[in-house]
Order: sequence, then structure tokens, then C-alpha cells
Amino acid sequence: MRILSGMRPTGKLHLGNLVGALQNWLRLQEEHQCFFLVADWHALTTGYADTSALAANVREVVLDYLAAGLDPARSVIFVQSHVAEHAELSLLFSMITPIGWLERVPTYKQQMQEMPDRDLSTHGFLGYPVLQAADILIYKAEGVPVGEDQVPHVELTREIARRFNHFYGPVFPEPQALLNVVKVLPGIDGRKMSKSYGNQINIADPPEEIRRKVAQMVTDPTRIYRRDPGHPEECSVHMFYRVFAPEVQDERAEACRQAARGCVECKRLLGDALVEWLAPLQERRRYFEARPGEVGEMLREGADRAREVARLTMEEARRAVGMFHA
Amino acid sequence: MRILSGMRPTGKLHLGNLVGALQNWLRLQEEHQCFFLVADWHALTTGYADTSALAANVREVVLDYLAAGLDPARSVIFVQSHVAEHAELSLLFSMITPIGWLERVPTYKQQMQEMPDRDLSTHGFLGYPVLQAADILIYKAEGVPVGEDQVPHVELTREIARRFNHFYGPVFPEPQALLNVVKVLPGIDGRKMSKSYGNQINIADPPEEIRRKVAQMVTDPTRIYRRDPGHPEECSVHMFYRVFAPEVQDERAEACRQAARGCVECKRLLGDALVEWLAPLQERRRYFEARPGEVGEMLREGADRAREVARLTMEEARRAVGMFHA
Repeated sequence: MRILSGMRPTGKLHLGNLVGALQNWLRLQEEHQCFFLVADWHALTTGYADTSALAANVREVVLDYLAAGLDPARSVIFVQSHVAEHAELSLLFSMITPIGWLERVPTYKQQMQEMPDRDLSTHGFLGYPVLQAADILIYKAEGVPVGEDQVPHVELTREIARRFNHFYGPVFPEPQALLNVVKVLPGIDGRKMSKSYGNQINIADPPEEIRRKVAQMVTDPTRIYRRDPGHPEECSVHMFYRVFAPEVQDERAEACRQAARGCVECKRLLGDALVEWLAPLQERRRYFEARPGEVGEMLREGADRAREVARLTMEEARRAVGMFHA
Repeated sequence: MRILSGMRPTGKLHLGNLVGALQNWLRLQEEHQCFFLVADWHALTTGYADTSALAANVREVVLDYLAAGLDPARSVIFVQSHVAEHAELSLLFSMITPIGWLERVPTYKQQMQEMPDRDLSTHGFLGYPVLQAADILIYKAEGVPVGEDQVPHVELTREIARRFNHFYGPVFPEPQALLNVVKVLPGIDGRKMSKSYGNQINIADPPEEIRRKVAQMVTDPTRIYRRDPGHPEECSVHMFYRVFAPEVQDERAEACRQAARGCVECKRLLGDALVEWLAPLQERRRYFEARPGEVGEMLREGADRAREVARLTMEEARRAVGMFHA
């Protein structure tokens, strides 16, 4: 199966991104042909007014991809805007995409409300799902690993593929959403880990910062005194043990329920475990961070490999539409 | 000055296109660096549902460009969709273009009303002026020869250039609309010559068809009998004399006013003059029509030359925005 996925470059990735998406991608790259992009055009749909951090953010995301274990020898890793065919197919799809379809996408009005400080009534923001359909279909991807909130976008991609095939003949597959194994990792305040809440632990955070953040984590709110028995299933810290140190999760849970260990100590141990867990990722990250030339070369090669596939699809789409070929 | 203009490929061009636009372009190509495109992406904004004639229409327009005297040795002649940078810059501009600007373009609702049989509430049709801005600005064109109805589009292009320059620094010039010397040529029924009225004489019409159409032309409606004096200034036929046979216009006008010559004879003479006037154009057209390989090569070269300029502009725009460069 051919797979496409990607993330917007909004800065360093955090453990929620790692657990919610990247770990899924790692499994997929073992068995499938995967295209992983950094969606810089998409960043512009909402962030056009201040692009001062755009290039740096792209670099951070690429480093986090590599840190997590995405492997340029197996998967095609590239920056979206480096392959012109994304823009071309997006323009072609825009011709056949009713505005009504776009206005009905649930995230359209939702994001506008969530970012009242930004003017999102632009042609580009309205067309963001058209661009996403192009991202997927330019590689004829059949599977798209996404979170629940992205399912309507994949459905719209299927509708655009159907409409194109209906007008011009069968060119595009109808891709399937591959739902990420839903592990919503809490942030240090107990809410879903998210950059917009400022409650995240980044993949690249230094050990002392990780320990500091873990020490701040909210634990079982009903365990008020050290002597009170706790409820691990209600505790963010325990959720972290399950994900990052499953081999000790039973011992930690038991000690919590019996009040044999206090939250401070339990978090100290988690901090150590997390630092250890992240060590190989951070080592990879430092390796590539110190070699921008190597990363640049890898991204150029990725874009070249992506373009090879994208060009063929675009040619096929042009022929199907009946565009003039000189 | 750098100039860009183009036409949608809707089929063979007629004498209204020739007099209203192409003759203007001929003058401009003597003195300026001109880019003349065939706007096939634009044809899709309204014609996406039936593309069966698209490629043939592009070919016809190219042949008419060459027939009229556009010179690939002087000007860059190419097909819009063959230069990917049009799509890329259009995508970039869409990020900063408010939907309100697009909805206010006079032709937006007007065209929707004029084509009630087509569903034009698409993302691509809404974005047509954004694409047009990209067409112009990707070459940093400073002059855009247009008809009166296109002036709002050039104004919007200027607004998009200003907004881009405001956000990201000075990259784009603000192009000027160069109004075509307004000669609205009447069709054979006396209304403005237009394909949508079916009253046109095509550049490529064979001599017998030209004579037949001229013979059908509406003349001064107040000259009912052969013996009635006519009013050349009210007569479509006389307008044609002024454009295509100015050396005899005074004689024809005088003979009309004095009823010395009847309309039938006057039109027979015009038919001959028009056939003669068009002969060298039609000969050039036949020459190229018989050499599709040569025309294809010319268009590939045109696209290559256009791309050279377009690539530089796109690079500059990316740098200004601060996009990541590998």
C-alpha cells in the first residue's frame, strides 16, 4: 500500500505528536511505501501574516522526524513546496471543487473561531482541503494515517477523486483514512498535550527540562496526602509509564494504590525513565542537527524521489483532462 | 517594459480579437519584451465539465497568434499550464488574498449570470483573478494590454502585489493596464463581434465563407431603397472599410451618401478586400498548421524561456516569504 502523511511545521514536535502519529508512521514504514512531507504550504494557510519562523520550523520538524526514526532509506521524506506538482494538482482540483464542499468541512469554521486574531477568510485557507487532496492523490496514496479530526478531510479527498474520475476517467484511487491508534497523551497540566496549551514536553527538550516538567505534572487529584492511596488509572503520570516504561507500570501502579510511594518520588522516577527513553532519539537528533548539509541533501533527494512519482501522476491527470501537450 | 497578455482557448479567433487585441500586441512586440500565453488553466475555470475541445482550441489559438504575426523570435509564446510556476505563485497568492476581494470583482457574479447552465461556484472560478495575478507577476510584467472589462483584474493584481510586498518585502511591481485602442468591431448582425453571438468572421474562415458572411452584413437601416442616400457612419460595412481598407474608405463613404453604389455591391467589394487583407495571415496559418512538429517545438521553447524568468521570480518570492530552502 502507498501511504502519505505529513505535519505542519509549527516548531519542535512533542511527545503527543510522537505517540499520536510518528510511532504509527514508524510501524507503517516497515511494511509500506511511505511519503512523509513537511506541509509548509499548509503552514501558510493560517500563518501567512508572520512567516519569520517558517524555515526554522521546517528544519525542526525534519529533525524530529529523523529523531523519531523515520528512515530516508525506506521512506520518502521531503518538504511539500519543493515538489511543484502539489500546487499544479491543487489548481486542477480547485476547478472541480464546489465552494459548498469546502465551507462544510468541520474544521473550516472551527479553526476560524479558534484563531480569532488571524484573518482566515482567504482563498488559500478556504482551499486548504483541496491542497490536502492534491498532497495525497499526487502520489495515488491509498492510505492516510490521520487523527479522528482529519477524517472529514480524507472523505473530501475521496469525493474529489470520485468527481475527477467521473469527469475525466479513472485516474485516482479513493484513499482510506488509517486511524492512528488513539493514544491521547496528556500534557503536564492533565489536558491533552498540545502546543497551544503550552503543556508539552518536546522530543528535543534537554534532560533537566524534561525532569523539571515531569516534576510539575498533575497527578491523581484525589490523592491529597502522601498516605492516601492513589488511582493510577486517573493519573497522567501513570499514562506516561504505560507508554514509555511499560515494564515497570505494574509495580508503579501497585505502589501508588498502596500509598507505598509518593507522587514526588514517582515523578522523579518517571523523569529518569523518560530521559533514558528519549536518549537515543535525542542522540540521532543531535547527529543530524550538526550536519545541515547532510539533511539538505537528504531533503533534495526526497523531493527528487517524490517528484518522479508526482510528475507521472500529473501527466496522467493532464492527459485525462485533455490538456494540450506540446 | 515587460508585457504579459493572453487569451483563453475557446476556439478559432475572429476579427474582433484581431482588431481588439492582437494588432495591439503586434505593435507592443516591436518595442517591448512580450510574453503571450494561451490561458488553458483559465479555460478550465469555466469549462471544466466538458474539456473535449480543450487541446484543439489551444492549437487553434496558437495558429491564430502566429497567423496574426506574433513572432516567436521576438516574443515568448507559450501555453500557461506548461510553466508550473503559474500554479505555484497562484497558490502562494491565494494565501494572502481575502475572499471578499474576489467576490467583489465585477466579472465574478456577472459571468455566473451569463452562464446559468454551468456550475461556477467552484474554488477555481472564485480564484480566477488570483491566478491571473500570478500570470502577470510571475514575469514581473509592468504592462498588461487589456480591454475595458479586464481593468478590475489588473487593479486586483496591483492590490495583491502591494499586499505581498507589504508582508514580505518589495518583490513585485504594480503593473499598469494598457487599454487596447478601443475599436469594437461589429459582427455581421451589427452587435459587437463575439463568438457567443455567433456573428463572427474568423481569421481562418475560407474566402467563400468570408464573402458569404460579408454579404449577410447588416448595413445602414435607414437606407431602405437602392436610391436612398446612406449614412456610412451608421454602417457596419463602413466600419470594416475603415479598418481593413482605409485607402478606399472615402470613396466608399461618398458613393454611399450619394446613393451612387448599392449596399449589395458595396459589400461585394468589401468581401474581396477582406479576403485580400487576410490572405497573408491565412497563408502563415496554413504554413504552421501543416507543421505541427515545428509549432510544438516553438511552444516547448517558449515554455522554456518563460520558465527561466518564472523560476527566478518564484525563487525570489520564496526567499522573501522565508520558505525553507534545502
